[in-house]
Amino acid sequence: MKNIKLTIQYDGFGYSGWQIQPDRPTIQGEIKKALASLTGQNITVNGSSRTDAGVSALGQVANIEIDSPVPTENFARALNQRLPDEISITEAVNVDSEFDAISDTKTKLYRYTIYTGNNRPVLNIRHLWHRPGKLDIEKMNIAAKKLIGKHDFKSFASAADQRQSSVRTIFQCSVKSDGDCVYIETEADGFLYNMVRNIVGTLVEVGRDRWEPEFMDKILETKDRAAAGPIAPAAGLCLMWIKY
Amino acid sequence: MKNIKLTIQYDGFGYSGWQIQPDRPTIQGEIKKALASLTGQNITVNGSSRTDAGVSALGQVANIEIDSPVPTENFARALNQRLPDEISITEAVNVDSEFDAISDTKTKLYRYTIYTGNNRPVLNIRHLWHRPGKLDIEKMNIAAKKLIGKHDFKSFASAADQRQSSVRTIFQCSVKSDGDCVYIETEADGFLYNMVRNIVGTLVEVGRDRWEPEFMDKILETKDRAAAGPIAPAAGLCLMWIKY
Repeated sequence: MKNIKLTIQYDGFGYSGWQIQPDRPTIQGEIKKALASLTGQNITVNGSSRTDAGVSALGQVANIEIDSPVPTENFARALNQRLPDEISITEAVNVDSEFDAISDTKTKLYRYTIYTGNNRPVLNIRHLWHRPGKLDIEKMNIAAKKLIGKHDFKSFASAADQRQSSVRTIFQCSVKSDGDCVYIETEADGFLYNMVRNIVGTLVEVGRDRWEPEFMDKILETKDRAAAGPIAPAAGLCLMWIKY
Repeated sequence: MKNIKLTIQYDGFGYSGWQIQPDRPTIQGEIKKALASLTGQNITVNGSSRTDAGVSALGQVANIEIDSPVPTENFARALNQRLPDEISITEAVNVDSEFDAISDTKTKLYRYTIYTGNNRPVLNIRHLWHRPGKLDIEKMNIAAKKLIGKHDFKSFASAADQRQSSVRTIFQCSVKSDGDCVYIETEADGFLYNMVRNIVGTLVEVGRDRWEPEFMDKILETKDRAAAGPIAPAAGLCLMWIKY
């Protein structure tokens, strides 16, 4: 039995998220199908992040326990031949039998992209939030910095989040602009359900001068989802990498 | 009656090309629907380029003759509210009643994108040709230069092309690379059916060292489609602009 770590990229548009659902196309479901086609076996794909419908990834990680004569160095190519164009395995390597893609995660980084120009960016619209209007990047960065550190992020968790603790540690949270594009990058040891999208929606309220950056402290203290900004659309979100 | 010139951007993926077809989504069809919703009228959308299924545009041009109380400066916004995300009117201006988007075209430029890296570029795969393997850009440019000028491009026209003359003038044809991306730009006073994609397919045969650049002269002389290279996929093609 081998334990193989897969690094996975996908365009989440048109998929109902990572996690397998009956009668809906999902990333995990497509990889499971490709594995069944390659090996004839029913293999569990243990993915680190359960990304939502419409969310993309350039560095999702999963592990699979498998007994297959296919050499691991040929695994990525063999799976890619069986996967749709929107999904790609960029690396497959043997790892220790103890490795678990979920519980061994140290940190992960999400990037969120906002397009602030007036014209609809037709070629990239599936991978960003089109929100016309300038944003105050400096103020957004002041607010973003307040999130760095170990905090209870309950105000940024969807009510659907069932996890026991809402305490997480954010290691970086920065806002950069390049022309009409704004990029928000957040690295943490873990994220609550919809946490990045709720942070982005809140930072945009600061960037459009509805809230002062100092209001971020109050939102954190309140521990109430209603205190933070509206959720940002899924399309702008991309899981960039996971560290172990 | 006003004559309005529209500049149009679209993601061609998922559409059966520019031209209206029964029971299929087309760019012209969607714009016609948006115009009907806005004005209640059945308006002809006279587009300069009949782009194929899967081909995108950042600078398609069309004109419409219309009798509407909507001020022209509000037209783009009003249409965009009625168009799908993949289609956008970037400009609407009043033009001379004689202006015809097809016959008044002076030149137009198409850009073709090839991705030569091994990993499938999942986020851009709808807008490029994924063809792993290095290409010899220098040789491709020598071959591309031979196409510049007034020539009979019959060897690069699809057999389905019904136009009387296959003589066209190419003003520029260049190949550039940026990392793993290769961009081929071609400006001409007009293009035969599938002409750019057949040129790209031929240049790739040169770039992968199957043909010497000098072979391009022979292909032009032969005036036979069978002499040129295979057609490149539609996904890599984008209409960049049209000059009048």
